[in-house]
Amino acid sequence: MHNQLIITSNDIINAEHLIADYVHNTPILQSQQINQMLGCELFFKCENLQKVGAFKARGAMNALLTLSDEALQKGVCTHSSGNHAQAIARSAKILGIEAHIVMPNNSPQVKVDAVRNYGGNIYFCEPTLEAREKLLLEVQERTGAFFIHPFNNLQIITGQATVAKEIFDLKLDLDYLIAPVGGGGLLSGCALSAFYYSPQTKVTGAEPWLARDAQLSMQQGTVQTAFPPLTIADGLLTSLGNITFGIIQNHVDQILTCSEEQIIEAMQLIYERLKIVVEPSAAVPLAVVIENKELFLGTQIGIVLSGGNIDLSAFFDLLKNRINS
Amino acid sequence: MHNQLIITSNDIINAEHLIADYVHNTPILQSQQINQMLGCELFFKCENLQKVGAFKARGAMNALLTLSDEALQKGVCTHSSGNHAQAIARSAKILGIEAHIVMPNNSPQVKVDAVRNYGGNIYFCEPTLEAREKLLLEVQERTGAFFIHPFNNLQIITGQATVAKEIFDLKLDLDYLIAPVGGGGLLSGCALSAFYYSPQTKVTGAEPWLARDAQLSMQQGTVQTAFPPLTIADGLLTSLGNITFGIIQNHVDQILTCSEEQIIEAMQLIYERLKIVVEPSAAVPLAVVIENKELFLGTQIGIVLSGGNIDLSAFFDLLKNRINS
Repeated sequence: MHNQLIITSNDIINAEHLIADYVHNTPILQSQQINQMLGCELFFKCENLQKVGAFKARGAMNALLTLSDEALQKGVCTHSSGNHAQAIARSAKILGIEAHIVMPNNSPQVKVDAVRNYGGNIYFCEPTLEAREKLLLEVQERTGAFFIHPFNNLQIITGQATVAKEIFDLKLDLDYLIAPVGGGGLLSGCALSAFYYSPQTKVTGAEPWLARDAQLSMQQGTVQTAFPPLTIADGLLTSLGNITFGIIQNHVDQILTCSEEQIIEAMQLIYERLKIVVEPSAAVPLAVVIENKELFLGTQIGIVLSGGNIDLSAFFDLLKNRINS
Repeated sequence: MHNQLIITSNDIINAEHLIADYVHNTPILQSQQINQMLGCELFFKCENLQKVGAFKARGAMNALLTLSDEALQKGVCTHSSGNHAQAIARSAKILGIEAHIVMPNNSPQVKVDAVRNYGGNIYFCEPTLEAREKLLLEVQERTGAFFIHPFNNLQIITGQATVAKEIFDLKLDLDYLIAPVGGGGLLSGCALSAFYYSPQTKVTGAEPWLARDAQLSMQQGTVQTAFPPLTIADGLLTSLGNITFGIIQNHVDQILTCSEEQIIEAMQLIYERLKIVVEPSAAVPLAVVIENKELFLGTQIGIVLSGGNIDLSAFFDLLKNRINS
């Protein structure tokens, strides 16, 4: 197994240059209070401040910029209820091509609106993986559009690898780099960048105990199916793909889990100490540091805050009630 | 009236150098969606990401760094229930001197803890201005500590002026710079920096309609007393001081107001689009752009997001209930 050879260091460097005009080199934030509390030094890479509010902007842009002109002319398609849908729609708009997005008919209105804002053509299906894939096939046949898988795609993984490359470029001498793992696009990209640019850094995947399919996949040596949607970290439900699993098996050091309470504790620390908004999935790496405090004592850790797309209307309803009372 | 001459351009440049090692040159964020919605181009200066979570870190650091060694030996004191208390305690800790902070006995526990974390000596008083000032006098007499007023102090104003200087250093060619106004330390500092570094920029103060004492002070030519504490923007209740009022009269172009609903709408845009946490007072400048949309159409506007210290426990209680149900 040498999956890493499929994506070279040059591929990652090329991706970084290709997408540089379209995505942010996001800031890194620190909190002395969080460091004191956990007895380690944490560097938070703020992909919540990325375009479309998530790291997905990178992979999508790289995938479209590496397509042939011929393929581009027929447009692109994907299925997603989340950040990948927005990222593909945005990248297609930038390049002036059509994006066809299959979305479950129970997708949050805010996400549907975001895709529509970027001019994406939306196709609604029943909220099952089967219905999604069936409708996507129909859309592909009708339009000839090129399918961009949300994570099991080499150009997507290469684009996500630029998150970690930007961190390693700062020469922070990290002992660990922790990223959340759902389908594994971000984690496998981080692992490849560590392999090329910071081999002493141990890459760690983070997932909720209630969706620990990646940890089980590593233990059992085959991709395990997704868990039922019980965790608050709704971006981490997907199971791994064969490409991401291969890279993760070879290059990720460990996958750690955390409880739902720890995810909320980590979110609260991020909101109150770093003063930034993250979605629950993005708080999972900090939550596994809380869960495994002894392991990380005295170390330097990069944390990928993967995204900031969360519905806060319940909070603002509370505030509105306060001024009306 | 030439109050501007009291604080020179050199004073501001010196302050910038003095405090550079102790505060952040905070990032500026933009949102294309907010720009589209309001028909103008907004540059958000993120003082919520500043040390202690607010611009107050600047003035406090400058005030202490410009004190004589003799004065420093006796320590410093102030009265504040909010960000200034933390900022003074932090600056004193950095310089290894004593900070004596008079706080009302109804201060939020989180703010008391923050001051205590920085090693500040806390003195509790009844929550009235009279009680604060009386206890502060006693503390001053007992300790000989030097009183650092939260805003009506030239070194504080000079420190706050560095916020706007950092914005103007970017040569963004701003038509407007909007800052919230409570006691006026931030607004008068911004006005002085505009006078020296960007005279074509119209400096605008922003305050809630429910605390429009600064607007009334401008109209009537004398400092008007504070309003009762009805606005959600609890950082903007204070009335102006004689020094800040003089600078504001001479160098601020206008003071605009907004409703409580607009403050919450602005907060929601900042949380959901910029993905950052701000306190209600920090959302007031965006709220006045929403209220006065026609006035700002087609212009370039700097917005000072003054701070991010807000109690979010009600929101996280909602999340905790969700995972326990």
